[in-house]
Amino acid sequence: MFIIGELINGMFRNVREAIAEKNKTVIWDLAIRQTEAGASALDVNVGPLSKDPIGDMCWLVETIQEKTNTRLCLDSTKPEVIEAGLKLTKNKAVVNSTTADVEKLDIVVPLSLRYNASLIGLALNKHGVPQDKDRRLELAAEIVGFCEASKFPINELYLDPIVLPINVAQAQSNLIFESMREFKLLSDPSPKVIVGLSNSSQGTKNRKIINRAYAVMGIISGLDSAILDPFDKELIDLIITAEVIQNKQIYCDSFLDAYKKKH
Amino acid sequence: MFIIGELINGMFRNVREAIAEKNKTVIWDLAIRQTEAGASALDVNVGPLSKDPIGDMCWLVETIQEKTNTRLCLDSTKPEVIEAGLKLTKNKAVVNSTTADVEKLDIVVPLSLRYNASLIGLALNKHGVPQDKDRRLELAAEIVGFCEASKFPINELYLDPIVLPINVAQAQSNLIFESMREFKLLSDPSPKVIVGLSNSSQGTKNRKIINRAYAVMGIISGLDSAILDPFDKELIDLIITAEVIQNKQIYCDSFLDAYKKKH
Repeated sequence: MFIIGELINGMFRNVREAIAEKNKTVIWDLAIRQTEAGASALDVNVGPLSKDPIGDMCWLVETIQEKTNTRLCLDSTKPEVIEAGLKLTKNKAVVNSTTADVEKLDIVVPLSLRYNASLIGLALNKHGVPQDKDRRLELAAEIVGFCEASKFPINELYLDPIVLPINVAQAQSNLIFESMREFKLLSDPSPKVIVGLSNSSQGTKNRKIINRAYAVMGIISGLDSAILDPFDKELIDLIITAEVIQNKQIYCDSFLDAYKKKH
Repeated sequence: MFIIGELINGMFRNVREAIAEKNKTVIWDLAIRQTEAGASALDVNVGPLSKDPIGDMCWLVETIQEKTNTRLCLDSTKPEVIEAGLKLTKNKAVVNSTTADVEKLDIVVPLSLRYNASLIGLALNKHGVPQDKDRRLELAAEIVGFCEASKFPINELYLDPIVLPINVAQAQSNLIFESMREFKLLSDPSPKVIVGLSNSSQGTKNRKIINRAYAVMGIISGLDSAILDPFDKELIDLIITAEVIQNKQIYCDSFLDAYKKKH
């Protein structure tokens, strides 16, 4: 699984303060420890309150890269903020994200192509989040179609079916797992599937256990990647184990440690 | 999920000694605590070393029923041992188990019918454990066919695809999850699907994490029941959570406690 650590995000107070005070130690610590915990990439989001999102993105990218070579997932609704980060990233970046709106695809797909980045495509548009499986598939197909027409490599496209919290949309989870299976059939080679895992438990009182069960259920449904909290060791261990059970990773007695060393 | 606690089994030293010494306290403790932990039934197995399996089965059944009303899963390869238990059980029992051999079905299916018990049917026969999906389906279909012809209620039939340890048969797990989906299609109403969960991790060094991931992967593949260690609280919590995510249990903030109180 391509694990993207979610913790370098200005919506969290420690990161917001670190950005304001240009306190590199906090960011280094999050970058190094998320990587050691199993993250293959780090989400980078300046947060909704940033007064200088381009400047803050550049500072975060440069700061993180002073201490790690981990891939970066540049997370903003503003393409100019993503591009500022893309100009600085040393390794292959992930652009997070485009919606299925043509006016957004028109900007973000060429941008991702230009910088040879992977791209996250959200199965939603300006009309909102889909409430059924057919609409999710329709939006995902629009993104795949646009990417194919733009010669964007489909195996670098990560489609997000949009996970909803189980306390407000309990009936949707089964549809979302089915959507994952369907998304993989949209082209050959398959697009990849990604979720923002913590969304599943937003507002609930047992967040970790929900995230953990949701991740394993996702993996057997075709999930390739998730943005998540890598400091939940049990979650990471379950993800690795589910992939071993699926025969995607070779079993050895020390398979948990072996995975973490490799990534 | 219909959780069957696995701990009252003479293959475990504490139970073997309790049987030999007629020490009821050990058995009561296992019966009560497994039930409190979430078990809807208790497996009862005198163990391979018992010198008086019929007598030991009767003592176990009577002892357990002195303190709990939990359903019992009478576990023996010998039909006469199962029948001795069936004569004493107060609640609907589970007969564990029949193979797909006609000579076994000929005895165990009528026995289960006579005592109005549920029945576990193993997808194996005297030729051994199947190594592929088609053979599992064939054996399961033979059991379903026999039960239908005998007017055994198919929704009381629990089919076991035979879980193999991932360290010796890593490539089989995906086939086994697919078998679960296929078994459910064998008749309408569907037969149920059960596994001996601990088999998945037999001989490995990370047993709990393997059991946990395997259970969640099973649930999304149609698993209705498992024989397992209910003292692994994280495992039970993951199972309950997976069923909530699947919308099989109603979400409330205290869904973990609510489930345990109900069962």
